Amino acid sequence: MVSSVQFVHDRAFILSTGDEIMTGQLQDSNARWLSAALIDEGILVAEHGAVGDVEKDLCDAILRAAAKAPLVIMSGGLGPTDGDLTREAICRAADDQLVLDPKLRSELAAMLARRGRELTPRQERQAFRPSRATAIPNAFGTAPGVHARIQTQAPWGLTDVFCLPGPPGELRPMFAAAVRPLLRPPQDRVVLTRLLHVVGMPEAECVQKLGELTKRDRVPLVGITASGGILTLRIRYEAREPNSPQGRAAAAARVDAVESEIRDRLGDHVMFTGAAGAIGGMDHLARQVIEMLRSGSAGPRTLAVVESCTGGMLGEMLTSISGSSSVFVGGFITYANALKERVGVLPETLACFGAVSAQTAREMALAGLGRSGADCCLAITGIAGPDGGSDAKPVGTVHIGLAWGSSLRGADIGSVPEVHSRHFLFTGDRADVRCRACVTALAMLRFLVLRGEASTPKLLWEV
Amino acid sequence: MVSSVQFVHDRAFILSTGDEIMTGQLQDSNARWLSAALIDEGILVAEHGAVGDVEKDLCDAILRAAAKAPLVIMSGGLGPTDGDLTREAICRAADDQLVLDPKLRSELAAMLARRGRELTPRQERQAFRPSRATAIPNAFGTAPGVHARIQTQAPWGLTDVFCLPGPPGELRPMFAAAVRPLLRPPQDRVVLTRLLHVVGMPEAECVQKLGELTKRDRVPLVGITASGGILTLRIRYEAREPNSPQGRAAAAARVDAVESEIRDRLGDHVMFTGAAGAIGGMDHLARQVIEMLRSGSAGPRTLAVVESCTGGMLGEMLTSISGSSSVFVGGFITYANALKERVGVLPETLACFGAVSAQTAREMALAGLGRSGADCCLAITGIAGPDGGSDAKPVGTVHIGLAWGSSLRGADIGSVPEVHSRHFLFTGDRADVRCRACVTALAMLRFLVLRGEASTPKLLWEV
Repeated sequence: MVSSVQFVHDRAFILSTGDEIMTGQLQDSNARWLSAALIDEGILVAEHGAVGDVEKDLCDAILRAAAKAPLVIMSGGLGPTDGDLTREAICRAADDQLVLDPKLRSELAAMLARRGRELTPRQERQAFRPSRATAIPNAFGTAPGVHARIQTQAPWGLTDVFCLPGPPGELRPMFAAAVRPLLRPPQDRVVLTRLLHVVGMPEAECVQKLGELTKRDRVPLVGITASGGILTLRIRYEAREPNSPQGRAAAAARVDAVESEIRDRLGDHVMFTGAAGAIGGMDHLARQVIEMLRSGSAGPRTLAVVESCTGGMLGEMLTSISGSSSVFVGGFITYANALKERVGVLPETLACFGAVSAQTAREMALAGLGRSGADCCLAITGIAGPDGGSDAKPVGTVHIGLAWGSSLRGADIGSVPEVHSRHFLFTGDRADVRCRACVTALAMLRFLVLRGEASTPKLLWEV
Repeated sequence: MVSSVQFVHDRAFILSTGDEIMTGQLQDSNARWLSAALIDEGILVAEHGAVGDVEKDLCDAILRAAAKAPLVIMSGGLGPTDGDLTREAICRAADDQLVLDPKLRSELAAMLARRGRELTPRQERQAFRPSRATAIPNAFGTAPGVHARIQTQAPWGLTDVFCLPGPPGELRPMFAAAVRPLLRPPQDRVVLTRLLHVVGMPEAECVQKLGELTKRDRVPLVGITASGGILTLRIRYEAREPNSPQGRAAAAARVDAVESEIRDRLGDHVMFTGAAGAIGGMDHLARQVIEMLRSGSAGPRTLAVVESCTGGMLGEMLTSISGSSSVFVGGFITYANALKERVGVLPETLACFGAVSAQTAREMALAGLGRSGADCCLAITGIAGPDGGSDAKPVGTVHIGLAWGSSLRGADIGSVPEVHSRHFLFTGDRADVRCRACVTALAMLRFLVLRGEASTPKLLWEV
């Protein structure tokens, strides 16, 4: 008789497969996404693993994962090529064999027919599944998933193994539609995670202000991560108590209390908060800036950008957010000096001060404001490297301009646009410098709107 | 007596640590980067693992990794907070204890002093190291690395464990400066990996054309991965033979032969090739387009962009490449219709056909060409979703315009700019649609330059 304990997924193991991951050719983004999705369901992730496309290695990894956690989520290895071995490895681990699933085969043939293609013998491989496993439908690709149960020596007996295809555009909807409904988070434990993104404060100062809140033996536990100029605080509450509405409410109250304490200590450096699976700090900052402009007390305000060294990255960040069109109008990529002049930077300014200067940043911002008709405009010009640096202007030198019309802040009077620029020396490689410049530009705008020009804080890397 | 076998790093285990990784808050990019760097040194990566900030779990993971491979590279857990436990876990795994390293302490104090800060007791933790381990200097941050050797039951006895800090801007230069010189790739084995990126061909067609080349028992082995509309073929040669100049030359000849066979079968769908650690297919495509325009037989040609639904992403991709300024001049982010009109799209066009239409894409491209003075201009307008779709124009509908002057291709005559547009229906979420649109735009330009307008192939997702 099977004990009911087997049905509790108290922790998970995430296993990725693919030679392209082991050789560093492909960034595995599924482990991160699945971790956040599981945490939001109250299931802790014990371990991540990744192995190459070798059937025995994959089988060993599946058996080890199944013995470590009652829930294993795998990604990759379900394609049509000879290097796709997840189906075979599951059979080997579960002592099962592959069978042709007629329903899968006809669905596959129909999907290919809609694309004007025929089912090749190679693609027919994808219509096979382990005989005792269930197929997971894939509406976005040709690789169905597999749900198998594997016998282990662990106390819970059977482990649920869900195999999903590697492409995130297929894995994510399949997880939501077919895996999530079958998850069984423990009912004797309450887990609650909340993230707070903090901007414009060095990590050491933040740690000092938080003091005893970051001690490892505290419940809830507070962790800190720094990335690209944004600090992320992670409040995690975990306790053995009934996962009842009352239990969850009590946990939320504890987390609320810590969040409130953190907000008291860090003030408006704290941006909005989210659940564990929330988007990263950079997306969050862009989202918050859009939200602040959209819902300002004096009505919606619009934003434009003029980008030189970031070449469109700030616009890309803003427009990665669905609904950004209510605030973001667009702008200009003035990578070459000729385009800076065409937009409105004076040739004399470029000649006297150079393209990377406070003067150029200010003129870019003012020109973008005028030409776009937006209420405010961010401009970025700098030296992202690795070439182009000098003693006077080393790699990482960036000037950020911010221009705004009287329309931006209700309190302002007069109709002449205002503009200021700030000077930064970012560390890191080309990608770091560009990314930090965009984040810092958004932080400048955020503090301008929140506090007014006079009292915006000194930002990280500001010279 | 220690056998010399201990000094051969024939394979590696990459271990990441951090609660922020296990909760899905942070994307671990170090495992990918380190894998590519090791493969390029001739060291295969056997496994990736990641565990949270729990000293015992970390210690167990270190011991398991050390028993699996004679080389372990760790990232994370070296910061100043109580959640940074790599130093402690190494001590536990190696039966060692932490000691204050006076040299580390004075370097740390000096680094902080240069930033106008004092060494706090918390930060002093970073000046401790396991007594028998060596510190690895960190020029870009406050966390020194650790090089320990851990006794195992495995045949090779001692395993080299290198612990590096999590931020990539610190990990990468530390790996290059301090870890790489200590690597000892096996001398009795030759490993050679080469990547080929393939554009404008469905995976099934590519697999069919490659035929027997992709069989799993072939040497060299050919693997295929699809990502964002680009296929990446991975040729891997691995054989037990002396890693001598002759052995390496023979391996290169074998790989050359396979590459040549692939190029014969796939023609100009193959883009340039690179070593295992080469950049991804999307960067590669942008790089190749820049290189084609820079080194054209009729002299360098310039490129501009006009972006609506991608909001700057195409410019970002192009400018992520150092040296792109020789070709890319910039462009316009015409997210709002008002900016499309300001750039030069006729109000009547927007009214009659809509912002997402072939007509608008063509006018955007022509306007961008004229206003930027570039030799060619790519324009993207579409519905990235999740909102904004309709039956007539579902989410994923994208029109890409390409305009070029007579200056672009030596063979063209006449001075009137030419323009065409193509219609796509991309699958996936908002991020997928945007990314695929940018990749496809670059592929359109690539085939136009290579083949001329009349014979560019049908691209993936083209309607």
